[in-house]
Amino acid sequence: MTVIQIYDTTLRDGTQGEGISFSVEDKIKIARQLDRLGVHYVEGGWPGSNPKDMEFFQRVRDEQFRNTKISAFGSTRKAGRPASVDPNLRAIVDCGVRVAAIFGKSWDFHVYRVLGTTLEENLAMVRDSVAFLKSHGLEVIFDAEHFFDGFRANPQYAMAVVRAAQNAGADTVVLCDTNGGTLPTELKEIMTYTGQALEVPLGIHAHNDGGLAVANSILAVEAGCTQIQGTVNGYGERCGNVDLCTVIPNLVFKKRLPCIPEENLVYLTDLSRYVSELANMSPDVRQPFVGTSAFAHKGGVHVNALLKDSQTYEHIPPESVGNKRRVLVSELSGLSNLVYKYRELNLGLEEDSAECRRILSELKDLEHQGFQFEGAEGSFELLLRKAYNGYRKPFILETMRILTELRDEGHVYSEAIIKLRVNDQVVHTAAEGNGPVNALDAALRKALEEFYPAIRRMKLHDYKVRVLNEKSGTGAVVRVLIETGDGRKSWGTVGVSANIIEASWQALADSFAYGILKLGENSDSEAKAP
Amino acid sequence: MTVIQIYDTTLRDGTQGEGISFSVEDKIKIARQLDRLGVHYVEGGWPGSNPKDMEFFQRVRDEQFRNTKISAFGSTRKAGRPASVDPNLRAIVDCGVRVAAIFGKSWDFHVYRVLGTTLEENLAMVRDSVAFLKSHGLEVIFDAEHFFDGFRANPQYAMAVVRAAQNAGADTVVLCDTNGGTLPTELKEIMTYTGQALEVPLGIHAHNDGGLAVANSILAVEAGCTQIQGTVNGYGERCGNVDLCTVIPNLVFKKRLPCIPEENLVYLTDLSRYVSELANMSPDVRQPFVGTSAFAHKGGVHVNALLKDSQTYEHIPPESVGNKRRVLVSELSGLSNLVYKYRELNLGLEEDSAECRRILSELKDLEHQGFQFEGAEGSFELLLRKAYNGYRKPFILETMRILTELRDEGHVYSEAIIKLRVNDQVVHTAAEGNGPVNALDAALRKALEEFYPAIRRMKLHDYKVRVLNEKSGTGAVVRVLIETGDGRKSWGTVGVSANIIEASWQALADSFAYGILKLGENSDSEAKAP
Repeated sequence: MTVIQIYDTTLRDGTQGEGISFSVEDKIKIARQLDRLGVHYVEGGWPGSNPKDMEFFQRVRDEQFRNTKISAFGSTRKAGRPASVDPNLRAIVDCGVRVAAIFGKSWDFHVYRVLGTTLEENLAMVRDSVAFLKSHGLEVIFDAEHFFDGFRANPQYAMAVVRAAQNAGADTVVLCDTNGGTLPTELKEIMTYTGQALEVPLGIHAHNDGGLAVANSILAVEAGCTQIQGTVNGYGERCGNVDLCTVIPNLVFKKRLPCIPEENLVYLTDLSRYVSELANMSPDVRQPFVGTSAFAHKGGVHVNALLKDSQTYEHIPPESVGNKRRVLVSELSGLSNLVYKYRELNLGLEEDSAECRRILSELKDLEHQGFQFEGAEGSFELLLRKAYNGYRKPFILETMRILTELRDEGHVYSEAIIKLRVNDQVVHTAAEGNGPVNALDAALRKALEEFYPAIRRMKLHDYKVRVLNEKSGTGAVVRVLIETGDGRKSWGTVGVSANIIEASWQALADSFAYGILKLGENSDSEAKAP
Repeated sequence: MTVIQIYDTTLRDGTQGEGISFSVEDKIKIARQLDRLGVHYVEGGWPGSNPKDMEFFQRVRDEQFRNTKISAFGSTRKAGRPASVDPNLRAIVDCGVRVAAIFGKSWDFHVYRVLGTTLEENLAMVRDSVAFLKSHGLEVIFDAEHFFDGFRANPQYAMAVVRAAQNAGADTVVLCDTNGGTLPTELKEIMTYTGQALEVPLGIHAHNDGGLAVANSILAVEAGCTQIQGTVNGYGERCGNVDLCTVIPNLVFKKRLPCIPEENLVYLTDLSRYVSELANMSPDVRQPFVGTSAFAHKGGVHVNALLKDSQTYEHIPPESVGNKRRVLVSELSGLSNLVYKYRELNLGLEEDSAECRRILSELKDLEHQGFQFEGAEGSFELLLRKAYNGYRKPFILETMRILTELRDEGHVYSEAIIKLRVNDQVVHTAAEGNGPVNALDAALRKALEEFYPAIRRMKLHDYKVRVLNEKSGTGAVVRVLIETGDGRKSWGTVGVSANIIEASWQALADSFAYGILKLGENSDSEAKAP
C-alpha cells in the first residue's frame, strides 16, 4: 500500500501567518523535531527570496536526519527569461538540497492578471523550470497554485499546466487550494478526475479559509493523492494551512493508512507545543488531538460517565498522541469532577461528604471573583490541601513595597522590598529587577533559597496577564497565570486582583509554595534554618 | 427548497467549553444578537440542571424576537420512572418555551455502561419522554447522542432509537457525533442511510475532535439533513462544537442554500467578536471568515497581486461577512505592503523612494526587538507620521515614579508621580490607582485632560501582556498591547520592554497620542493652554 507522505511547510508557508516568525536556530530545531516524528519532507524556505532562508540551507547540511528530506521552495522562471539564468531557480540548485518544490500558476486569470503574460508562455515557464531542476538531479515537486479555482474557471488550461509539469519530469504534482475556499465534495471530484487523467503521483496543499482544510486533505487521499502538504498547528497566511497535527492522527488512527509510524504519534503533542513556543503563539486550547482542552471534560454528566469508562466521551485515547485527559472544576461541574481530582491527587477524601460540598461552594465563589483553576492545577491542589490536609504554608508575606522609576537619563528601574515570615523567623530583604514582578521574584527567591534550596531548580516559564472586565480599562481586575517548571514537570498557578502586582504576587507565591511541596517530596520538605 | 435551519447552542453546549461562562444578562444579549442574524433556534440552557438557566427562561419571556425560537434542553426520563413525574422534563414544560430538545442514548454501550439499564427500557425512555413533551404542545427535537458511534457498534439498535423518537412524534431527529471522531465520508453515508429509513426531518450535531465538524455538517446537508446545531466560535466541550460562524457562510455563499438571509451575514463578524468578549475568550485570529487574520495578507507576492485584484487571494469579499482586508507589515513583507499602508493612510509618499526603504528597515529593526505592529495600527501610524509627516508629539514624559505597597493591614496600594512636558509647559502631577498601570493611566489623564479635552471620550478596552522570551522568567521582555476606543472606533498600540511598567507606558502614551490625533481631526487638535 502506498505510504501517504507528509510534506511539512511550517518553516516556509507557516511563516506567512500573522505574527509567525522563526530564527534560523528555531528552524533547525523544528526540523529536528519533525524528523523525530517521522515527517517525510521539510520545506526549509525560499532561498531566492530571503537571506535568512539561505543561512538555514547552509546550516542544515550538517544535520543528520533519519526520516526527513529537506526541500527548497521557489517559483517557476520569470516570463521571457531562460530557466538557467533565473536567480530563484539557481538559488535552489546552489543551496544544496536534493528536493525542490516550485509553484506555478494554473488559474488562467492569475496568468494574465498577476503575471501579465500569455497562457502559452506560462506553460513554457512550468516546463522549463521543472526540466531545469530535473537536469540538476533534483527530485521535483510541482505546486499547481490555485488549481481548484483554475479548474473551475478553465479546466482545459488547468489540466494543461499540470500535464506540462508531469511531462517535464515532475516527481509529484501538488494541487493547491491556495485561497482555501473549495468545498470537500467538489475538491474530491476534481482530485479524482485529475488523478485519472495523469500518471504522476498527486499531492494536496489545502488552506483553511472555509474551515475545511482537514476534510479536504483527507478526501483528497480518498481520491488517490499520496502527499499532504501542511504545517504544524496549521500556521499560515490568513486562516492558515492544513494542520498536520490534526491530519496525521486522522490518517493513522481513523483511516489506518500507512503514513507516520503509529508509535511515533506520542510525540505529536510535544511537537505542537514546541512549535507554538518557538513561534511565540498562544497554543489553541481547543486544537484537535493536541490541544490542552482536547481531552478536557467539564460537564458533570460526561465526567460521571468517564469515571465509568473513558471510551464514553473520548474518540481516541489521549496518550496515543502524547496528550492527557483533564477533568475541569467549574460551576458546571458536579461532585464527580471534584471526586476525580481527589482520586488523582490521592488525597483520600470521602466521595459524598459535607467537606466535598463545602469546597465545591468555595470553588464556585473563587471562580465568581475571576479565579480560574482550569489552567492552574498548582493553585488548585494547594487549595484542596489547605482545606483538608493539614497543609502548612511554607512562608507568609508581611509587607511588600515595590518602586518603579523612570529617571532623567531614561533608564527604568524597579526595586522590591519584602518582609516574610518563614516558620518563626522573619526575613526582611530587597532586590532589584528588570521590572516590578521580576524584582518581586528576585526578592522572594533571595528570601526563600536559604530555607528551601530546591527552589534553585525552579524556573518561571510563562507569565500571562488577562484583563477580566476590560470595560474598566487599566483599573480592571486582572488574572495572572504563571507557569513554572523544574526541567521535568511544570505547574500553573493563578492570582486575581485589580492590582497587577498583587495578582502577580498571589500567582508567584503559589508557584513557590507548590514547587516547595513537590520538590520537597523527593528530598527534604521541611524548612531548615539557614 | 427546504430552508436549512440553524440551531444555536452557544448558551448551553457552548458553556461546556473550558473557560466559558455566561451570566444571565450575557445570555439574553447573545440571544438578541442571534435573532438579529436570523438564527432559527436558540437553546437557552438546561432548566432542570441549573438555577441560572431557569432565570434565563424567565427573563427571556419578555423579549420579542423576530426570527428566533427559544428552546430548552434536557434528557430523556430516568429509567424506571414515568415521564410525567420526571423533574427534568417537568422543568422544560414549566419554563415556558415552545421548543424542547432532549437527548437520549443511541449507543448500546452507553445504555448499559453509563445508564445501567436495558436496551428496551432506554427505547421506552425515548418514546415516553418525546410523547410527554408533545402532549404539552411543544415542538420536540430529539438529539440522538453518540448516533454515529452507536450505528457503527449496533446499527439495528441505533436505528431503533431514532425510529422510537420519530414514532413518538418528534418534529426533528438530530444525529449527534458526540465524541467528534467520525470522518466525513462515513458520516455522509450513515446520514444518507438514516434519511432513507426515516420520514422525520434530520439534523446534525457535530463536535470537532477530528477537526472535521464543519465538513461533517456540510456533508450532512448534502445527505439531506435540514438542521445544523452548533455554537458561535465553535465553543464547546473539548475541541468544541461546530462553529456556526464558519458553517453559515459556507452554506450561504458556497452552496447557495436557503438558510440565513445573505444580507444578514454582514453581522457575522460582529457576532463572533461580541460573543468572544462576553465569554472573555481571546478571539481566534485565524478563525475562518470572521477572524482578524482571515483576510490578512503578509507575503509580498500576495500583496502585490492583491493590489492588482483582490480576488486573486481571497475566496470571498471580506465585507460580505462584515470583516475587512488587512495588509500586514513584517519582515516578510516587501515594499508592496508598505505602499498599501501608505495608500490606506493617505500619507502621500513616493512608492519606491529611499524614504520607503528607510522606514522598512526601521520597522524590521523594531520587530527584531519584539515590537509587533500587526495588532497595533495606532502605533504603526504614529511611526509613519513621525518619519514623514512633520508630526509633533503632543506630550513628552520627563520623569515617572510608581510605588506599589502592601501594608500591614493587607491592602495593596499604587501611586504614580509623573512630570510631563506639553508644548512649553511642564505638568507635574500624581494619582492613585488600583494597580501601577491604572495609577499611571490616571496620572496621565489628569495631566493631559486640560490640554486635550477630547481624551475624556477615550476608554481603554483591553490590555494584554505577552512574555516574549519566556525562558527568562519574570525578567523576560514583555510586549503590552492596548486597545483603546472612543465609542465609535478603536485602535491598538504597543510597547516592548523588560519592564512591564515601561512597556505599558509606551503603549499608553501611543494610545493617548493616537487618540489626540484622531479625535482632534474632528475638532481642535492643537494643544491649548488650560
